[in-house]
Formats: sequence, structure tokens, C-alpha cells
Amino acid sequence: MPAPKTVQQSTCVMNEIVLPNDTNSLGNMMGGRLLYLMDKCAAISAQRHANQVCVTASVDSVEFQGPIREAEVVIIESQVTRAFTTSMEVELNVWAENPRAQTRRKCNRAYYTFVALDEDGTPTAVPPITPETDEERRRHEQAAKRREVRLVLAGRLDLEDAASIREDMLDALAKTDGD
Amino acid sequence: MPAPKTVQQSTCVMNEIVLPNDTNSLGNMMGGRLLYLMDKCAAISAQRHANQVCVTASVDSVEFQGPIREAEVVIIESQVTRAFTTSMEVELNVWAENPRAQTRRKCNRAYYTFVALDEDGTPTAVPPITPETDEERRRHEQAAKRREVRLVLAGRLDLEDAASIREDMLDALAKTDGD
Amino acid sequence: MPAPKTVQQSTCVMNEIVLPNDTNSLGNMMGGRLLYLMDKCAAISAQRHANQVCVTASVDSVEFQGPIREAEVVIIESQVTRAFTTSMEVELNVWAENPRAQTRRKCNRAYYTFVALDEDGTPTAVPPITPETDEERRRHEQAAKRREVRLVLAGRLDLEDAASIREDMLDALAKTDGD
Amino acid sequence: MPAPKTVQQSTCVMNEIVLPNDTNSLGNMMGGRLLYLMDKCAAISAQRHANQVCVTASVDSVEFQGPIREAEVVIIESQVTRAFTTSMEVELNVWAENPRAQTRRKCNRAYYTFVALDEDGTPTAVPPITPETDEERRRHEQAAKRREVRLVLAGRLDLEDAASIREDMLDALAKTDGD
Amino acid sequence: MPAPKTVQQSTCVMNEIVLPNDTNSLGNMMGGRLLYLMDKCAAISAQRHANQVCVTASVDSVEFQGPIREAEVVIIESQVTRAFTTSMEVELNVWAENPRAQTRRKCNRAYYTFVALDEDGTPTAVPPITPETDEERRRHEQAAKRREVRLVLAGRLDLEDAASIREDMLDALAKTDGD
Amino acid sequence: MPAPKTVQQSTCVMNEIVLPNDTNSLGNMMGGRLLYLMDKCAAISAQRHANQVCVTASVDSVEFQGPIREAEVVIIESQVTRAFTTSMEVELNVWAENPRAQTRRKCNRAYYTFVALDEDGTPTAVPPITPETDEERRRHEQAAKRREVRLVLAGRLDLEDAASIREDMLDALAKTDGD
Repeated sequence: MPAPKTVQQSTCVMNEIVLPNDTNSLGNMMGGRLLYLMDKCAAISAQRHANQVCVTASVDSVEFQGPIREAEVVIIESQVTRAFTTSMEVELNVWAENPRAQTRRKCNRAYYTFVALDEDGTPTAVPPITPETDEERRRHEQAAKRREVRLVLAGRLDLEDAASIREDMLDALAKTDGD
Repeated sequence: MPAPKTVQQSTCVMNEIVLPNDTNSLGNMMGGRLLYLMDKCAAISAQRHANQVCVTASVDSVEFQGPIREAEVVIIESQVTRAFTTSMEVELNVWAENPRAQTRRKCNRAYYTFVALDEDGTPTAVPPITPETDEERRRHEQAAKRREVRLVLAGRLDLEDAASIREDMLDALAKTDGD
Repeated sequence: MPAPKTVQQSTCVMNEIVLPNDTNSLGNMMGGRLLYLMDKCAAISAQRHANQVCVTASVDSVEFQGPIREAEVVIIESQVTRAFTTSMEVELNVWAENPRAQTRRKCNRAYYTFVALDEDGTPTAVPPITPETDEERRRHEQAAKRREVRLVLAGRLDLEDAASIREDMLDALAKTDGD
Repeated sequence: MPAPKTVQQSTCVMNEIVLPNDTNSLGNMMGGRLLYLMDKCAAISAQRHANQVCVTASVDSVEFQGPIREAEVVIIESQVTRAFTTSMEVELNVWAENPRAQTRRKCNRAYYTFVALDEDGTPTAVPPITPETDEERRRHEQAAKRREVRLVLAGRLDLEDAASIREDMLDALAKTDGD
Repeated sequence: MPAPKTVQQSTCVMNEIVLPNDTNSLGNMMGGRLLYLMDKCAAISAQRHANQVCVTASVDSVEFQGPIREAEVVIIESQVTRAFTTSMEVELNVWAENPRAQTRRKCNRAYYTFVALDEDGTPTAVPPITPETDEERRRHEQAAKRREVRLVLAGRLDLEDAASIREDMLDALAKTDGD
Repeated sequence: MPAPKTVQQSTCVMNEIVLPNDTNSLGNMMGGRLLYLMDKCAAISAQRHANQVCVTASVDSVEFQGPIREAEVVIIESQVTRAFTTSMEVELNVWAENPRAQTRRKCNRAYYTFVALDEDGTPTAVPPITPETDEERRRHEQAAKRREVRLVLAGRLDLEDAASIREDMLDALAKTDGD
């Protein structure tokens, strides 16, 4: 297995001006256009971590919070939160910035999963992540839970084998039982 | 409230050739590029149903099943499964077709949610869906559950108020309790 | 010669939103941009029929009937009407749809001719078309006439050898002779 | 009616490198992509003549003579051959150039018809063309014939009223009658 | 005059994957494509400083040091070094990164000048820059010299009035006089 | 060394309509977008001269004189002014044309330097230029001076060895000495 790497080493930042062709007839950025930019940013993070070509395996649910307008700037930041055998979870945070008002507002957070491929296109081992800060350690732990949710949703893991999230769900249901 | 419409009226089909700029260095279509095409297809379905400009509110998790190659044809089909007050769930199914081998394989299924906006950009009421076939009725019911999952995941609905999915989860957990 | 195929097997549908960069300064879709989309749609039909890479050999005259506006949806349908030794005629029908008014209007009909190429780029035999409906049979017959017109126009067929269209022209001229 | 202008005043030249996204999987430029470039070139010629926004009304049949390869240079030349009340015929000639071999070969000739629009989008009168050379005069005369063919093909002119081309057709048929 | 701002406030970072359409037939990124990305990055820096729409006024000479390959990542960093009445100098540094080898090499440094425009398109005052580090102060001083060179080169300043650079030139010439 | 060629043989002309995506939020063409078109035009000139793939080595300072508006036509003309061992200087002149007013105004002049590469990507000898007119001879001489300025600016030539420009600078300084 390759030597561990830090979260910092995989960080990637994109700044993009929203151009006319990125928008619908109300002048708002199309959601799919943003998902495309986010995919390119996350792919760079994954490749920085894996030193291999990386392809998108899945995207967790994304909620779009309010419109981004033509001529605004989209800021995307991505980093690998955790590596599994041949795959990596990449966390993305997106902001929109109004150049005149100089205001910056949070637009969404998303999780993309990438798989590293060798030159023949076969999945290949990636280095583990060594989280360095408390925040990175928190995300590292949550990444394992999100992965179980993904596998259950994809029908590739039975809920009974999803140890960590099953407990969370029982907790959540327990709280509502008293009602 | 506008008069009900059928699922059929919102159907949209796209066929697209995968061009060099859609692919990574292994010649595989980038996931984000596919999410962009899917968003445009789903937006047309939503607009056919609402007769208004529609913007992407959220995308449910998407899993990419195997690579789509340069020069292959991507086929995307979308339709509104259910309408809520001002929003609609659009189901997307994606296939890839190899022109030489004439084989067609399923790539993924996804759910995008759109909100209809009037000319001032304010959310506006959309017609309800009248499902006509058994398959459409099944999807119509599941759409309500998926919406509760979305609201819970987005922190906008307490699990205790998510009546339908809470029951499903208790069922699922009950089955694993005997282990 | 490969086994015959039906018209249905080659059908291709495209739905596309007209984006700002597709339009001129009056907000109307540029004719050349539409010809480009039609070419991609027709190429997919040709490839579905031939199971080979297909290249555009010629485009018959196209008349544009009225403007298509930014944010409208262009709908293109194509299908192979008849196959010749290594070439195919593809018929295209184009509509524009206004998402707010939900009106759909016919924009044009066009005929593109494609040639199938093998992996060395050499023209290669394609399956014949078996028309199944009366409408398909009518188009199948007319396709032979259109091909003769094309060859005469291209200076590759003498008018005297263009049996079917020569008769039509004599008919047309005969009608005007009495004037 | 605006003052006459020369053919020279409407000439437009384009040189374009064929990029990967312009080509199919054999590395040949897609026909539709070339039709798009030709439309932009012809539109500039029409606008230079009319001093108005001009939109494509029709394209006469185009035959593609041999492939244009990725990295080759496409050279397009266009000029207005004749003006009618509110429309103009634009002739296009296309060559492909191989940068290494420094060879230039003719690819096709085409005729696009444009209509001039005023600021309200209404067709508006354009200046007549004053042909200056013998070649320009020849094209000017042929343009009138091509226009009649277009109108007959579009079903907007009876063959009996198409004075000039009817004669040509009778001539052509007469020649073959003796066989 | 608006309140001063720091260099840091105008920093902008872009990471971009080199796609097939960005490259020539040897698979190297075209210089003009890089100049385009640099312009977008620098424009964001200028707008962050000015809180106005900013347009490119000039670009100083740029030297390209070695090819950037398809599928590599281009990293662009920009920041305002100094503000003049209505214009700003933006310094850009560009690196290329090979995802497999994880090597990063310097590609070029460049200086773009932008002018801030108000809503009527009229040049408008921008805040001065307060350099905070020694490095920022050094760049701030050199920016004034580069501006004089630009004005002399553009024929808008006599060499005799270009106080700072005239001295530098005399120094340089003096050193060579003894030879 | 290959046989000499004329300036005329390398001439290249581009006409391009400014589309929405080429412009900023004031509807003015972005400087970087123009630099990209200029690079493609200059590359064709260089390749016509060298009959080899040519890559951009450097761009001299460019000043943008006034905005180019959406829907205007950009006209770019380029030609090789002088060839050095494996490199060529290409001069570019740019105009903008308003289609309604039919006015054409000069936008800028620029100098790009290209290097010819053989099939292995190694710099390779290019033919010398034989200037034919007085104007071409003047530009040919100035090209040598501009090259020395470039080499001095790039730190690859000592000012004392830049014979021609050192003299010019002493002249310029001498004139100001009397003040």
C-alpha cells in the first residue's frame, strides 16, 4: 500500500466567472453546469491524492441553495476526506461571489467518490489519508458512515452489516419513540 | 391549481455522441459532463410539465456503472414522476450504445428535483401528475418517500414527521433485530 | 450483403435547449448551429443502421421556416429512409417548442446522405431497409428519386439516365405546355 | 432602395484549425461542424452587404468531397452574388490545407440565402449588387436561376412561372429525346 | 478615493485540466488558450479589488517556458500588485502539474492591466493597495516602473518623463560603457 | 536550410462574430478571448511558413484600444515578418467592424513568436523570409530589434550584446539629456 498522505496535499480551488452559456433564460446558472465544474475540481483532488487517473464512481445528493447569477464568480474547494482501498471520498464546498457587492454566500456542500485506475483502466490501490486536525479527523470518521449509506442505497450492503449507521438510525428512531 | 397532466406529456429523450472534450485521458466520459446533459434533459421534462422556467433544486445520489467511451452514444430519457406544490421530481434513465457492436447497456438511474419559477423568479404552482399505468403509479408513490428522505437529509424535516419512510426504516431494522 | 433492417431501428430523437451562444444578436438561433445539431442526430441514425462509423456525404437544400428563439427547445427526429450500396439517406424533421406557451411548431424537413466507413476509412456495404408501413414505403420510393436529383445536380449522372425524375419533369412541363 | 454595392464589399474569409472536438472517431471533420462555420462566414458577408442583422433563410444542397482531417486548416470564402428585395444569395467556397504538405484542395461550393431584418425583426430592403467582372456577371445571372429552382423546390413558385429554368429543362430534355 | 485594500484580498486561484480541445496536434496546450484562462483569473482578481466590472487594458510580454501536455493540470494564481487611479496591475504565476508523476513546474509569470468601469462603462476610481510584506512592497515598487515602460512602449509617455526607468536604463548603459 | 519564402505566402485572415460567451457582463469582448483567436490566426501563419507544427514561444505586450461589442465582427490579419533559425515573428493586426454602421476601427497590433517542431517535438529549421516591398523590408529590420528586446527582457541576452537596440536607447536618452 502506498505511503499515507495528508488532506492538505489533495486540496484544489477553482474560481470561475458565470458566462451567458452557463445560465438559463432567467440568467441563473444551470445546476448541471455547476455539477460539471465540481466534478472537474474533485477529479483534480482525487488525482493529487492517488497520482493516477481517477474516474467518478458516484455523487451523493446535492441540494442547490438559491440561484447563482450570470457574471458572478463561483468558488469551488475540494479535498479528499478519506481513502478506501481503490476509492476516495472528495468533499466539495461551493460559494458564489458578487463582484460589485463583494458578498460571498455558501451555495452547497457535496461528496463525490472517485476510483483510481492504472494505465490499463484497472482499479488500483491509493494511499490512506492521515487526518491532521480535529476537523479533518471528524470528516474522516463521517466519511466511513457516508460510505455505508452509499453502499446500502446502491443495494451492495445489507443494512444489518452497516454497523455504524444502523446504530445512528436506532438512536434517531428511539428519540421519536417517546412521542 | 392548474389542471392535472400525464407522465407521458413530460417525457424527454436525448441522444448525444461522446466527443473528445467530454472525456478524460483514458477516453472515458467524465461523470460531471454526463450530469450536465442529464440536467438539461430533466429541465426540459420539468418545463413541459410546468409550462414555466424550472431550476434544479436538488439531485439525489447518482452511481456511475462502468465507463462510457469516446464516440459511443449516450441516451437519456426523463419524465416527471410526481409534482408537489411548486416542485417536481424528474426520473432519469441513462444508457450507452456502442455504434459498431450495436449493444446498449444501462448506465444509471437518477432523480433531479426542479422548482417552477414565474417571470419574477418566484416559485409558482405546477399541475399535479395523474399516473396512468401501474408502473407510473408505483413511481408516483415512491416519489413521495424519496421526497421525505430528501427533506430529512437536508435537515428540513424531522425524522418523526417523515411518516412513510420512518415505517420503512423500522421494518428494515426489525428484520435485522433477530440476528 | 448484411441482413435487412427496419426504419424504426435507426430512429433517433434529440431535444436541445437553445442557449445564448446558439443565437444571433436578435436572439434567434443561427441556421448553421441547427444544421450542426441535425448532422449529429442524422449521424446517429446512420450509425444505428450501418453499425459502422458514418460520414456526411451531402445535405439536400434546407429551408428555415421562421425563427427559433433563445430558451426554446429544438426537437429533432431522424431515420434512415433507404439504403444504397454503401450510403444511406436520412430524413430529418425539426420542431421548436415554446416552454411557456407549450406550443410546438414545425421548422423544417431535411435530407442528409451518409456513407459507412470501415476501420480503414473505406466505404463499406450497409444493410438494405425493409419499409414496414405505407408511409415508410412512400418515403422509400421517393428516396430513389431524390438520389437521382442529387447525382444529376452533382454532375455525376446524365439527365437521360435519371429514369424516374426525367418522367416527372416531362409531366410537369407537359402541364405547363397548354398555357 | 439603398444605393448599389459591389461583390467585393461583401467578401469574407475565414481560416480555422480543425480541433479534436470538430471530428468524429476517425479524426475527420463532421459535416455539420463545417456547415456551422460556413453559416457564420456567409452571415458576415450578408451583413456587410445589408448593414443589417441577417438570418439564414435556406441552404442549397451541399456535397462534401473527401474528408478534412484533424489539425488541417479549413479556408472559407464567401461573397454576395445577387440581392433580391430583402434577401441575398451568398456563394461559399471551401478548401482544406494540410500544414505539413502545404497542399490545398477544394472541398465544396455552396449557396446560402439570407434575409435582412431591421431592429424589429421585420424583413427590410437591401442594396442591389453591381457586378464588376465577367465572372461576377455570370454568377449574378445564375443566381436568378438558382432562386427560381429554390422557389419551385419550396413549392412557392409554379414550374410554369419559372421562366428561365423551364427553358433550361426543356433544352436538357430535348437533347435526350433523340436517344 | 475608496479605502485601501490588501494584496491578499484580491488573490485568485484556478486549477484546470487540459482537455483535448485545448491542445494542438502534438498534444500541447495552445498558448492562446492559456492566455484566455489567465485573463479570466486576472479579471476576478481585479474585480475583487475594485468591486466593479474590470476590462483588460493591456498584457505585458509573456514567454512560454516548455509545453503543457493534455491531461495535465494548469494552476494559475493572480493578485493585484498595485492600483493606479482607475487601473490595476495584476501579476499572474502559472504552473503545470503532472497528475501521475505529481511534479509541478513553473510555466510563466505575466502582468495584465485592468481598468475598472462603472455601470455606464466609464473608468472609475479604485482603492489603493497597501502592501503588507516585504515581497509585496518590492512588487508594489516595481509595478510603478513596469507602468512607465508600458506607457513609453504605447507612445503615451516621453522617455524623458519616465523618471524611474530612465535612471535604470542609464545605469544599465553605464555598466556596458566601460567595455 | 529550406528555400526562402515570401511574406505573402504566410498571410492568414480571420473574421469572427463576437458571441455572447465571448463577452463580460457589459457586453464587451474579453481580452483573453481575443488573445486566443489571435494565437490561432498567428499559428496558421507560422505553419504556412514552416510547413511544420508551430507552438507559441512568446507574446509581446498587447494594448487593447477600446471595447469590441457583442455581435460585432473581429477581423484578424497575420503574417510572418522574419524567420530566425527555428523561430518566426508573426505580426497581427486586429480591427472591429460594426455590421449596422459598417464602420471598421483598428483595435490593436501584436507580435507573437512561434517555434517550429518536427514530429518528435524538436525545434527544426524554418525557411528565411524574403521581403518584397519597402514595407515588408522595414518590418523585417524592426523584427530583429524586437527580438533583441525580447531576449533582454527574458534575461537571455546582456544589454551590451544587444547591438541594435542599445544604440536606439542611447539615442533616446541623448535627446532627453539636453533638458
